[in-house]
Amino acid sequence: MLMVSACSMTLTLAARADEGMWLFNQPPRQMLKERYQFDATDPWLEHLQKSSVRFNSGGSGSFVSEDGLLISNHHVGADALQKVSNEKTNYLRDGFYAHSEAEEIKCLDLELNVLQSIEDVTARVNAAVPKDLDPAKAFLARRKVIAEIEKESLDKTGLRSDVVTLWQGGAYHLYRYKRYTDVRLVFAPEQQIAFYGGDPDNFEFPRYDLDICLFRAYENGKPVHVKNYLRFSTAGAQVGDLIFVSGHPGHTSRLLTTAELEYYRDVALPYRLSTLKRLEVLLGTWSARSQENARRARDDFFGVQNSRKAFDGRLAGLLDPDLFGQKAKEEADFRARLAGKPEFADAAAAYDKIAEATRVMATQAKRYRLLEQGAAFNSESFGIARTLLRAGEERPKPNGERLREYSDSSKESLELGLFSEKPIYNDLEILTLSDSLTFLATELGPTNELVVKALAGKSPRERAVELITQTKVRDVAFRKKLYEGGASAVSAANDPMIELARLVDPEARALRKVMEEQDETKQQAHAAIARARNAILGTSGYPDATFTLRLSFGTVKGYEEDGKQVLAFTTLAGLYERAKEMQNKPPFDLPPRWEKRKSRLDLKTTYNFVSTADIIGGNSGSPVVNRAGEFVGIIFDGNLQSLSWDDVYSDKQGRATSVSSPAIVEALNKVYDAKDLANELVNGRRK
Amino acid sequence: MLMVSACSMTLTLAARADEGMWLFNQPPRQMLKERYQFDATDPWLEHLQKSSVRFNSGGSGSFVSEDGLLISNHHVGADALQKVSNEKTNYLRDGFYAHSEAEEIKCLDLELNVLQSIEDVTARVNAAVPKDLDPAKAFLARRKVIAEIEKESLDKTGLRSDVVTLWQGGAYHLYRYKRYTDVRLVFAPEQQIAFYGGDPDNFEFPRYDLDICLFRAYENGKPVHVKNYLRFSTAGAQVGDLIFVSGHPGHTSRLLTTAELEYYRDVALPYRLSTLKRLEVLLGTWSARSQENARRARDDFFGVQNSRKAFDGRLAGLLDPDLFGQKAKEEADFRARLAGKPEFADAAAAYDKIAEATRVMATQAKRYRLLEQGAAFNSESFGIARTLLRAGEERPKPNGERLREYSDSSKESLELGLFSEKPIYNDLEILTLSDSLTFLATELGPTNELVVKALAGKSPRERAVELITQTKVRDVAFRKKLYEGGASAVSAANDPMIELARLVDPEARALRKVMEEQDETKQQAHAAIARARNAILGTSGYPDATFTLRLSFGTVKGYEEDGKQVLAFTTLAGLYERAKEMQNKPPFDLPPRWEKRKSRLDLKTTYNFVSTADIIGGNSGSPVVNRAGEFVGIIFDGNLQSLSWDDVYSDKQGRATSVSSPAIVEALNKVYDAKDLANELVNGRRK
Repeated sequence: MLMVSACSMTLTLAARADEGMWLFNQPPRQMLKERYQFDATDPWLEHLQKSSVRFNSGGSGSFVSEDGLLISNHHVGADALQKVSNEKTNYLRDGFYAHSEAEEIKCLDLELNVLQSIEDVTARVNAAVPKDLDPAKAFLARRKVIAEIEKESLDKTGLRSDVVTLWQGGAYHLYRYKRYTDVRLVFAPEQQIAFYGGDPDNFEFPRYDLDICLFRAYENGKPVHVKNYLRFSTAGAQVGDLIFVSGHPGHTSRLLTTAELEYYRDVALPYRLSTLKRLEVLLGTWSARSQENARRARDDFFGVQNSRKAFDGRLAGLLDPDLFGQKAKEEADFRARLAGKPEFADAAAAYDKIAEATRVMATQAKRYRLLEQGAAFNSESFGIARTLLRAGEERPKPNGERLREYSDSSKESLELGLFSEKPIYNDLEILTLSDSLTFLATELGPTNELVVKALAGKSPRERAVELITQTKVRDVAFRKKLYEGGASAVSAANDPMIELARLVDPEARALRKVMEEQDETKQQAHAAIARARNAILGTSGYPDATFTLRLSFGTVKGYEEDGKQVLAFTTLAGLYERAKEMQNKPPFDLPPRWEKRKSRLDLKTTYNFVSTADIIGGNSGSPVVNRAGEFVGIIFDGNLQSLSWDDVYSDKQGRATSVSSPAIVEALNKVYDAKDLANELVNGRRK
Repeated sequence: MLMVSACSMTLTLAARADEGMWLFNQPPRQMLKERYQFDATDPWLEHLQKSSVRFNSGGSGSFVSEDGLLISNHHVGADALQKVSNEKTNYLRDGFYAHSEAEEIKCLDLELNVLQSIEDVTARVNAAVPKDLDPAKAFLARRKVIAEIEKESLDKTGLRSDVVTLWQGGAYHLYRYKRYTDVRLVFAPEQQIAFYGGDPDNFEFPRYDLDICLFRAYENGKPVHVKNYLRFSTAGAQVGDLIFVSGHPGHTSRLLTTAELEYYRDVALPYRLSTLKRLEVLLGTWSARSQENARRARDDFFGVQNSRKAFDGRLAGLLDPDLFGQKAKEEADFRARLAGKPEFADAAAAYDKIAEATRVMATQAKRYRLLEQGAAFNSESFGIARTLLRAGEERPKPNGERLREYSDSSKESLELGLFSEKPIYNDLEILTLSDSLTFLATELGPTNELVVKALAGKSPRERAVELITQTKVRDVAFRKKLYEGGASAVSAANDPMIELARLVDPEARALRKVMEEQDETKQQAHAAIARARNAILGTSGYPDATFTLRLSFGTVKGYEEDGKQVLAFTTLAGLYERAKEMQNKPPFDLPPRWEKRKSRLDLKTTYNFVSTADIIGGNSGSPVVNRAGEFVGIIFDGNLQSLSWDDVYSDKQGRATSVSSPAIVEALNKVYDAKDLANELVNGRRK
């Protein structure tokens, strides 16, 4: 499943085949014209852009009716479904359908963004950072000017304004978004059918998932009326069709140097996988103890399993000598072209600078992940405690000097998360905090000074129980009081979890500083490489993914695997065959409703399909549209062979996986008796 | 579950409460007399000793009828059940009952040992190792004399003869065993009831497991007639009863120095847990893909989960400052008593020697585990390939100079394993080998010279497929040919897996040599400490566990947890209540037969019970006997609080868990219609 996974690190990519996650302000017009005789006009692009939605919880979606109806994946909606469920109602597992506007449920702390405009601010950003400034000062200067640009834009337009670093530092663009924070649940199927086949079939194809979730955006207590939404195609896509994907790929590493990829391959991914597998066993075994445990941990557990499978696939790609050899050869060839050319001296020198910065970052990575990224204190409570502590310290500072997430332009989003009424469970908190304190003690050693202080003379389990039962940060009113009261109120509260965050903060901040400065060095080096690349290879191309809106394109097309042809489409009939083959045992069991309604369904209806569109985690929920810009499907996954796309795209076997539009209408009408909703999709408005 | 887990590293233990895993030749007679007014006579002890059985696959058991009937745990029998199952019949999952002698199924490569005698050979061993010999030479001299003693004993008695290192080098005893290698399956319940509650309830109490498996020992094609077997008590044990456990605890670390415990806490256990969790995710996700996958991986998967839960518990104990502080204080107090006493100068110096040897071993541990212990090549095929390679090289050497597992006295056991017809599955082999080659590449780095050679220019997955599909070592005839042909035949076969083993062997052997020499240093140091301890504290005590027969004792007794009293016994009624509470969902679902037969059962029958007897992994299947030496239950587990017993025994909450004898008879009669078998148990002979 294509959620964004945290794990992030510029240059122009030379696109191969249908490769490319293109910027909407630099679309591949010529390529589309030459290869597909398709004219990507400005109105066509603008309509698709403004119909596309970013789910800030980690995915993508699109408007599909003028009455603010939105579609995304069930696994993107899972976060929202989890937060509005409780011991009695398990919407995540059992599904949900609002038969009327009144029944639509408001999601907690969900923010959607719709991109309104893009402005290139590279010149202004770079002008504020004098050449040859040392990285520490350069970082501060860059952060300051970015905060200024964002604040100005926010004040002027009222739109969320984010400066995005593209090409790893080669360019800076200002993205302005319309924000929606009143988002309501309309429909979700049972998780059993949305995630049919579970972890075993995740990232596999053929596939049989109804991975959809429908929402409605509200403003001032009423559904919004939107001008831009996608017309729904009841015919769907056909084999060989040109299709487009408009969504928010989280990150890719295609422009990284081999030194950076080696770091991923040899250090970052193995370490991350080890911690993921630890967490998978922890949450899996705890979930097995009771249905209620399983419910509480469900969304986290899914996220961990999903990332584990994706990273295992990515690591396998990087350990393939052919794939890595190809990357290394491209780099060597390009460096050979730079050699001896004074005008590219900075680019030629950049590789060693990046390697050195990567080496320095690698020495700090473990402590950074433990202390600054919170892996040592894995709990919602710690995250809240630290936010309260830092908000108290950061907000009195000038806007341009704060940690980025406390800037004026980030204020609304920060508060949305901080004051969320989402449920937090003490037992799950104790479980994850005990485990992560154990991890801290074994990673740094139980006699390490910071560890001794953090554990306060107790075993990890005892300390976790003490912290979770004594902290008050799970009370939203308490949070508001401390946030409004500032540093003195935070200090006066003497909350044990906040005091733990305070204990760790000097070292956490110092580690972050090292990482940010090395990253600044890398950005400057990558900018030099990007300039040389543009000069030598031309400017066409696309930057690595940054969880911002991108356009991909491709063809609906099967592939060959182990000598057999895998067809591009599955059908509803295939779902029932798969269930039979797997004896209807979990996770291959059909929801009862699907068993009962089988005879009503047109089993020839196309269900899931694959295409060569270039996607990655974050594209989950992205609309798939045809030449006419009509919604023909929704991205929810890639196959196993696509898992190396983080580093290298290849359409030999790699494919993006979607739910086809006809299956959505068929299921809503015949399985869920949701005719009004199906009609709204088909007609583009409520009756 | 109390299986032996690999992970092993002396001194006399001062026993607290019912602590102690006592040698049968040094039983705690006085303690039993004083504390329980019990007289452990020689005949009583000899009878118990000769009724006790070691399962070399990793557990314990006992004779329970004169016709060679044996009882152990289902999870000890799991290895045998797995090996005689196939795609059509899944005895491990579904259970088995031989209605007649003809239906009893011969187990593959299962060796049972019954201890006949113990002889103290310390003086002879030490006499062969001159004082002040350097550790490398001392190790060789000690190995040589041990091989001689074993060979002489084997030739003289025909009995399996093992010299056992006790008190970490403080003493050497020669154990002579009668071997049984024709062992047949008689009865196993469904795994669902044997391991009721699965991983979530593993190591928990209250508990409801019928964790039993019955076998029969044969010789010359007929059931053996044994003189020593345990009389079965249909009354079972009562709260407050003195009980004894006679079994084979695998290993404990109670006499280790704090330097050694720190190594476990900070390095060995975290590393081991990380690799276990990796394997748990691998096998778990693969098992979820199909019922047949689940069947193939079942026993391995259980073993991994079981070790993971046990080690997590042990690590939590070592990270408890109270527990570790107690160990550190005891050591400091004892060292203070040694200080300034010339007669104990060697003991006083021993601690630093042990710390230094531990440090050296720690530097090699990762490579040792990968290369010599085979963690980098996790597959049955690699194990067989290496055995063939090494057998060819070792067997021409003089007996005393071989790697220990190739000595004359080990020959029969080695061949039993090597020529086993047990099923090996290519798909599972490729799975585990791919994963472990990936682990090798990330642990040593893909550019490491040995890694490059081992992977032969391929990705881990490609290389695993190549090795597993091309090797012939899964053909037993091929193995016999190479084993009999010796080194030249092994070389001429040019088998890719054997050649991989050859590639790795120089470094693997070098690593083993370092470990063995450091271990020799530690043995000498521990022997000095043991002498001082005996001189200062007296000779009463027991050595750390060594998977040899030990006597434990204790009381049937509940405990307090979170302010509530946990009763010593559960009943059959409790089983049905637990199933209801957990909505009969896996792993808390009852086998259909247990649902149907509920009304026939006396639900007041005692089912599982806890006692203070001192046990550890390897004690699985140990008989629990009363003062009269009657079988009143069978050990199958310890509670969570017993998981720190590896390092420190405490009966505050820690308990051993058993199936009660009345429940066994009740289930055989009323659930399984196995009246003949129940009668054989009750009468001690077949009708």
